[in-house]
Amino acid sequence: MTAYLICVLFLFSRVNSLTYDPTWDSLDTRPLPPWFDDAKLGIFIHWGVFSVPAFLGAGFWWSWKGQPLPAIVDFMQKNYRPDFTYAEFAAMFTTELFNPEEWAEMFQDSGARYVVLVSKHHEGYTNWPSKYSFNWNSNATGPNRDLVGELSAAIREKTHMKFGIYHSLFEWFNPIYLDDKHSKFKKRNFVRTKTMPELYELVNAYKPEIVWSDGDWEATDAYWNSTNFLAWLYNESPVKDTVVTNDRWGSGIPCKHGGFFTCTDRFNPGKLQTHKWENAMTIDKHSWSYRRDVRLEDFLTIEDLLSQLVSTVSCGGNMLMNVGPTKYGKISPIYEERLRQLGQWLRINGDGIYETRPWIHQNDTVTNNVWFTMKKAVAATAVYAILLEWPDNNLIKLGAPITSENTTVSMLGYPETLVWTAGTFGKGINIQIPYVSVKTIPCQWAWTFKMTGLQN
Amino acid sequence: MTAYLICVLFLFSRVNSLTYDPTWDSLDTRPLPPWFDDAKLGIFIHWGVFSVPAFLGAGFWWSWKGQPLPAIVDFMQKNYRPDFTYAEFAAMFTTELFNPEEWAEMFQDSGARYVVLVSKHHEGYTNWPSKYSFNWNSNATGPNRDLVGELSAAIREKTHMKFGIYHSLFEWFNPIYLDDKHSKFKKRNFVRTKTMPELYELVNAYKPEIVWSDGDWEATDAYWNSTNFLAWLYNESPVKDTVVTNDRWGSGIPCKHGGFFTCTDRFNPGKLQTHKWENAMTIDKHSWSYRRDVRLEDFLTIEDLLSQLVSTVSCGGNMLMNVGPTKYGKISPIYEERLRQLGQWLRINGDGIYETRPWIHQNDTVTNNVWFTMKKAVAATAVYAILLEWPDNNLIKLGAPITSENTTVSMLGYPETLVWTAGTFGKGINIQIPYVSVKTIPCQWAWTFKMTGLQN
Amino acid sequence: MTAYLICVLFLFSRVNSLTYDPTWDSLDTRPLPPWFDDAKLGIFIHWGVFSVPAFLGAGFWWSWKGQPLPAIVDFMQKNYRPDFTYAEFAAMFTTELFNPEEWAEMFQDSGARYVVLVSKHHEGYTNWPSKYSFNWNSNATGPNRDLVGELSAAIREKTHMKFGIYHSLFEWFNPIYLDDKHSKFKKRNFVRTKTMPELYELVNAYKPEIVWSDGDWEATDAYWNSTNFLAWLYNESPVKDTVVTNDRWGSGIPCKHGGFFTCTDRFNPGKLQTHKWENAMTIDKHSWSYRRDVRLEDFLTIEDLLSQLVSTVSCGGNMLMNVGPTKYGKISPIYEERLRQLGQWLRINGDGIYETRPWIHQNDTVTNNVWFTMKKAVAATAVYAILLEWPDNNLIKLGAPITSENTTVSMLGYPETLVWTAGTFGKGINIQIPYVSVKTIPCQWAWTFKMTGLQN
Amino acid sequence: MTAYLICVLFLFSRVNSLTYDPTWDSLDTRPLPPWFDDAKLGIFIHWGVFSVPAFLGAGFWWSWKGQPLPAIVDFMQKNYRPDFTYAEFAAMFTTELFNPEEWAEMFQDSGARYVVLVSKHHEGYTNWPSKYSFNWNSNATGPNRDLVGELSAAIREKTHMKFGIYHSLFEWFNPIYLDDKHSKFKKRNFVRTKTMPELYELVNAYKPEIVWSDGDWEATDAYWNSTNFLAWLYNESPVKDTVVTNDRWGSGIPCKHGGFFTCTDRFNPGKLQTHKWENAMTIDKHSWSYRRDVRLEDFLTIEDLLSQLVSTVSCGGNMLMNVGPTKYGKISPIYEERLRQLGQWLRINGDGIYETRPWIHQNDTVTNNVWFTMKKAVAATAVYAILLEWPDNNLIKLGAPITSENTTVSMLGYPETLVWTAGTFGKGINIQIPYVSVKTIPCQWAWTFKMTGLQN
Repeated sequence: MTAYLICVLFLFSRVNSLTYDPTWDSLDTRPLPPWFDDAKLGIFIHWGVFSVPAFLGAGFWWSWKGQPLPAIVDFMQKNYRPDFTYAEFAAMFTTELFNPEEWAEMFQDSGARYVVLVSKHHEGYTNWPSKYSFNWNSNATGPNRDLVGELSAAIREKTHMKFGIYHSLFEWFNPIYLDDKHSKFKKRNFVRTKTMPELYELVNAYKPEIVWSDGDWEATDAYWNSTNFLAWLYNESPVKDTVVTNDRWGSGIPCKHGGFFTCTDRFNPGKLQTHKWENAMTIDKHSWSYRRDVRLEDFLTIEDLLSQLVSTVSCGGNMLMNVGPTKYGKISPIYEERLRQLGQWLRINGDGIYETRPWIHQNDTVTNNVWFTMKKAVAATAVYAILLEWPDNNLIKLGAPITSENTTVSMLGYPETLVWTAGTFGKGINIQIPYVSVKTIPCQWAWTFKMTGLQN
Repeated sequence: MTAYLICVLFLFSRVNSLTYDPTWDSLDTRPLPPWFDDAKLGIFIHWGVFSVPAFLGAGFWWSWKGQPLPAIVDFMQKNYRPDFTYAEFAAMFTTELFNPEEWAEMFQDSGARYVVLVSKHHEGYTNWPSKYSFNWNSNATGPNRDLVGELSAAIREKTHMKFGIYHSLFEWFNPIYLDDKHSKFKKRNFVRTKTMPELYELVNAYKPEIVWSDGDWEATDAYWNSTNFLAWLYNESPVKDTVVTNDRWGSGIPCKHGGFFTCTDRFNPGKLQTHKWENAMTIDKHSWSYRRDVRLEDFLTIEDLLSQLVSTVSCGGNMLMNVGPTKYGKISPIYEERLRQLGQWLRINGDGIYETRPWIHQNDTVTNNVWFTMKKAVAATAVYAILLEWPDNNLIKLGAPITSENTTVSMLGYPETLVWTAGTFGKGINIQIPYVSVKTIPCQWAWTFKMTGLQN
Repeated sequence: MTAYLICVLFLFSRVNSLTYDPTWDSLDTRPLPPWFDDAKLGIFIHWGVFSVPAFLGAGFWWSWKGQPLPAIVDFMQKNYRPDFTYAEFAAMFTTELFNPEEWAEMFQDSGARYVVLVSKHHEGYTNWPSKYSFNWNSNATGPNRDLVGELSAAIREKTHMKFGIYHSLFEWFNPIYLDDKHSKFKKRNFVRTKTMPELYELVNAYKPEIVWSDGDWEATDAYWNSTNFLAWLYNESPVKDTVVTNDRWGSGIPCKHGGFFTCTDRFNPGKLQTHKWENAMTIDKHSWSYRRDVRLEDFLTIEDLLSQLVSTVSCGGNMLMNVGPTKYGKISPIYEERLRQLGQWLRINGDGIYETRPWIHQNDTVTNNVWFTMKKAVAATAVYAILLEWPDNNLIKLGAPITSENTTVSMLGYPETLVWTAGTFGKGINIQIPYVSVKTIPCQWAWTFKMTGLQN
Repeated sequence: MTAYLICVLFLFSRVNSLTYDPTWDSLDTRPLPPWFDDAKLGIFIHWGVFSVPAFLGAGFWWSWKGQPLPAIVDFMQKNYRPDFTYAEFAAMFTTELFNPEEWAEMFQDSGARYVVLVSKHHEGYTNWPSKYSFNWNSNATGPNRDLVGELSAAIREKTHMKFGIYHSLFEWFNPIYLDDKHSKFKKRNFVRTKTMPELYELVNAYKPEIVWSDGDWEATDAYWNSTNFLAWLYNESPVKDTVVTNDRWGSGIPCKHGGFFTCTDRFNPGKLQTHKWENAMTIDKHSWSYRRDVRLEDFLTIEDLLSQLVSTVSCGGNMLMNVGPTKYGKISPIYEERLRQLGQWLRINGDGIYETRPWIHQNDTVTNNVWFTMKKAVAATAVYAILLEWPDNNLIKLGAPITSENTTVSMLGYPETLVWTAGTFGKGINIQIPYVSVKTIPCQWAWTFKMTGLQN
């Protein structure tokens, strides 16, 4: 009799703990842990053996030996012995100046609320001492360090940011993968002995709060066994309650299933999305990883970055902003400048970004380069209009807001409330900005106007 | 009789061609070729074997083996085999991404009018294939290129800038030098077989329009044989009519003799000097050469740079602004940004900088952070007041200018003339700047007000 | 009806083709392909990443990081940067002077009849582009060549020798192996994903006629799945009819099961063995692989080598004589000298070695340093007495042979038959060697006396 | 008055101390210090940056960039980055396994009585920390050691051998030298600032008992200032009483002036010379320095070496036998074997070599491959006939010796005196060697027969 009861209870608890089935139908029902939508801004870090040639970008190996680009082939011929191999770059991935606490401080100062580190890119080299990547990992050759471990520890100890990991499912030149591929993915040795063991190892060891999957596109989610992993991740893993994932879990899956949607690289649709999404983009316009030959013109300006951030957040996305550290472990000052500029802006304007939600409008009907966000509050719901361009004659004309008697307007960073008038036929609002010189203006690149007491 | 006449004629011709004696009394009489005072801004480039460790700065070797710094000793112990020597860095000075035309364009865009490249620093490594530096030069180990030759050609072919060379007289660890030094400079083998042959070789090969000497301080100009070199340079060298030199030609000489005065590194006295001088300073506040571990905070901001430039020019100096390229031959984007920001400012405000001369006042008596320059012209002499800080209420109050009926005032980059009133008791001037928003202001960091028709 | 017959035939053929079960009982019944016993002498080649430090021997990694030897730890500290890892040696395994045809000629000239190349040692680095050793193989880092493929081709094209491969089952530091070991070999991931796939790949790709297994001792043959591999090798592999294997297939197996027995390294029991065996030994007494610090005294002399060969063959063994090539692909001249000396001896004395069988006696009862071999022939069976020491007074007294009227005696390499007398009581034989000076003696280091017409 | 006397005394003392004038007439009168003629055998060591590529030989640089050999150009293209320079090899000249005491023991054991180390070859790299070779010496790049100093100390502390140095006057690619050469040697900057300072530095620092000059052939002794150096060396240097030099002091000088004559490389004229000479030869027939691709057949056999030694000594020469160490500081075992074999032979036969003088005959009139030496003694003069080939029937027939009643004959290493008979007509001698087997023969490769009491 007792035994029977225990059995029932056990089954019951099991049903409770394993909430999700390994199907998209089930997995897609999981609510996104709310921290993610509130966070808005993350730092993406592409760092690996490709940081050694630091030429072209993270796709160096592929552009040399996969689909050769003449520029890369020529670069190798001019600078290396003929028999030099890509694997030999690893010993030069020295990271000797890498100070994870310095990175943590810099990322925090940018206003980002999470960090996503490449743990393994398509080259297959693991930035942690993986059991499943013998002699092709950061402990075995190059740094002689656990890069994932060191950064995750520093992020957690020194900041309030969340720590996540990027992981590539496929590896361009791993022969076990190529063998599976050659079988049209009937064989699944690569998934069984490499991809999946690695993912479990990563989650168990570093407890990432984001699992940012990539490199999925050549095979289906069935091949990758993605839903089983996600079911484990959501039901049983040490981060089951807080982890978020993206959508790159197999061909046809991105933008359809998973946690937040990343769709394509640098996805920024410019209109409201029905599902939480992320704009994974790069400060160096043309590369995910450090390029030694990068020029100033290749970097987004702070104005560009703010334009990306504001449009992304307005439409319901987060921005994951990528930096590419050097092989010796430093983030070059131009990146640092962009990060700190952004932080400077967010310290004044963050109220219109963090914890906001899309408003009923994203753009304005009258004035260009204005994006709206909204924040519900017990006292009063606020709508934020963020201007990317300073208005002629200091007069802002907005078509979307519908004012009320109680409407108040302020500029973030400016001490006084602003004077406004209702637009024609009671629609819209005209806001007169008082005189602010270059010295007294609260910030230089984009300006946030907070409206409360609107009717919409 | 015939012999006597010939002798006389010979002496006569010699007097004609050799204008200068090898004495300071004579050399100091040479007028400075006027291009230099007009140019105002130059780019200094520290590049050499020290760019390989790229740690601490150009004094790496000295801080390792001369007067050891724990940080450097520790760095070497952690990252190199115990028997590693400084000379072994040279093979890693690869410069494989060095494109001299790219540098030329970037320097030109900064508004600089001359470039001074380190041809040899205290380490003794020559950036050209010197006859006098066997196997310790850029052709023999490392680049396998003539760096001085390539950059000088690009500067001349692609820009209107002048090309100059920096050259260190002494070499920390050259045993021939140390032997001379040990003899209290009674021996002069180093000067005879190294320093002087090198300088003649450089001038003859690259025809530099600046010879920027350094490393003089341990010995007198008599030891260095400086005056003989300068007499040759001024009388007979291929650049005798256009070349300028500095003042670092022996202990006790700087700030006393030579061409323009550099006095000490980062010399910026803040008041008018009686002799043409130059402020040799660095964009990286703490280093002349590239540091891999440099941080954003180590770089002067554009505001800092403008403050340096404006105060320097106002007091009669030129500014020689240093950049440190990487061992692979690139100037990192943060440097590029500073250069291009400066160029952007100079394209609007250059009228108050280039070809100007010091005015009777340098600072203003009423308002801080204002520097004056002046330009004589047939039509009307202009006085420029350059403000480093935007005035409260858009009202500039200057004490130094004495206005007249004909006084006109404009802001460079702004289309309209400005309204002004004379100060109290007819002294000084009050200029009312019209409303300019962040969008319509001609520039962001310093503003030039041009006054004509002043009485002083 | 037809179906039934087909089925029977099929089963029958299957029984025929799959002669061996995966049990030792069955496998041990396989007759050793006769070429092996006839061959007597093979060349063993230890070559790998350990050839780069070339210090201590093939166990370098283990002696550095497994059970550290002070000499190795000290060597690394003195000569490498602190973070240097073993995997980084691989890029220096350049093999640029490796000419497989040169090796083939040299081995052939030594009189050897087979070659066994290390395809993978305990370090796990594969000397062929294995699918199962991503970026830790000779194509991916270092040589950029298929070393196994190149040598096997040269051996087959240029010589009559057989080609075999050495393969280590375990890998000291492979984390998958260590994980299995940690489970007390309950897990078998390493065998399934690494060892076995590799062995099949090797056999299918290179068709070795010897599979020389090693590194078995930490786990049982059940863990290694050895018998299944051997059943496949004997039943179905492309070399099923000719391949021979050794006995290192699991703890407790050596000297008990398998093809020929190797028992322990340098096994040379000095008496007749009941099972075919092999003496795997090294010309460098202390190392299997090239040592840069090796001294002359470390090498076996040609007299030592002949003593090993003759005693081994007399007792029924083959000798597998190891050479250690350099990282750049050359076999150093001292090895070459030993090989060619042996070849020189075998060209005269090979009749007493190749295709021989043990005689009823191995040693002589009267004279030391004599070893017997025998060769059955239709005409007359020959017994060979090989003297390692020249007899006093040119008189050989042997106790073992029993002469007959028809007994004839000759010295290999000497044109005339020798005079003999029967020993005391008709037992034994006394052979008088004629005068041979240092100039006329057939060889210098060991002498073979062939006796026919003996009664025993 | 006093002054006059002092002056006279001073001149007198100067005449005494400065025995030799800087003219060949005077220098050639200096008697050769007797130790040299007694020593007979020396070891020559070619070691330098050329030991790094260790391909072709010490002329690697010249064969790459001077007069390019396709094999070398191809080798560099296949194995190095295109911009690799010769100077970059220096950092790889690590010498980490160099133990000078080990070398000293090995050389001593060879029977050599002196050692000549290359201090600087035509590449210009100095194996000591020369003041005159900044950053192109063994302290500045590569070994970080004073190779000349360490070996000289070990030779002196651990052996009775003399220590000498080889020094190249010219340097293929030193631009100062090339400049002098370009002036048809009217300029003499190279000699004044490099060659001569270096030679004085070497002699003063290391007190070599041999100064073995080379690289003289492109210029006259007047250019090189050779006679002044030699006058100093003989009159005033710290080794003035014991030093010997060779003859390579300028074009036209070798084989005419100087100490012993070396004439050409591998000089071995085969007949008696009137002036003391030296056969500078190599154990590796084709190279002075270590070659990684050397094969056994490239090495002289011990028989070849003995043939060289015996013929050289018989004709009045010394043999200077060259070894080429590896870049890591080891002498490879094949060299060691030759050295120890020679030592083994000399321990038995040295009585016929050391301290001997040429006899009236060098070869025999009747038997080939016999060389004579002689040693005068109070008791009895001995004549040694050294046979390179064992005589047929153990009977030696010599035509040259004229016996007397007192003639006695022995074989070195054999305990008993030998039986002889006079030749036909009382001319010559027939020596019957008793039976010696391969086991009892005193040595294996050449045999010395000592005759006393001859009439000639």
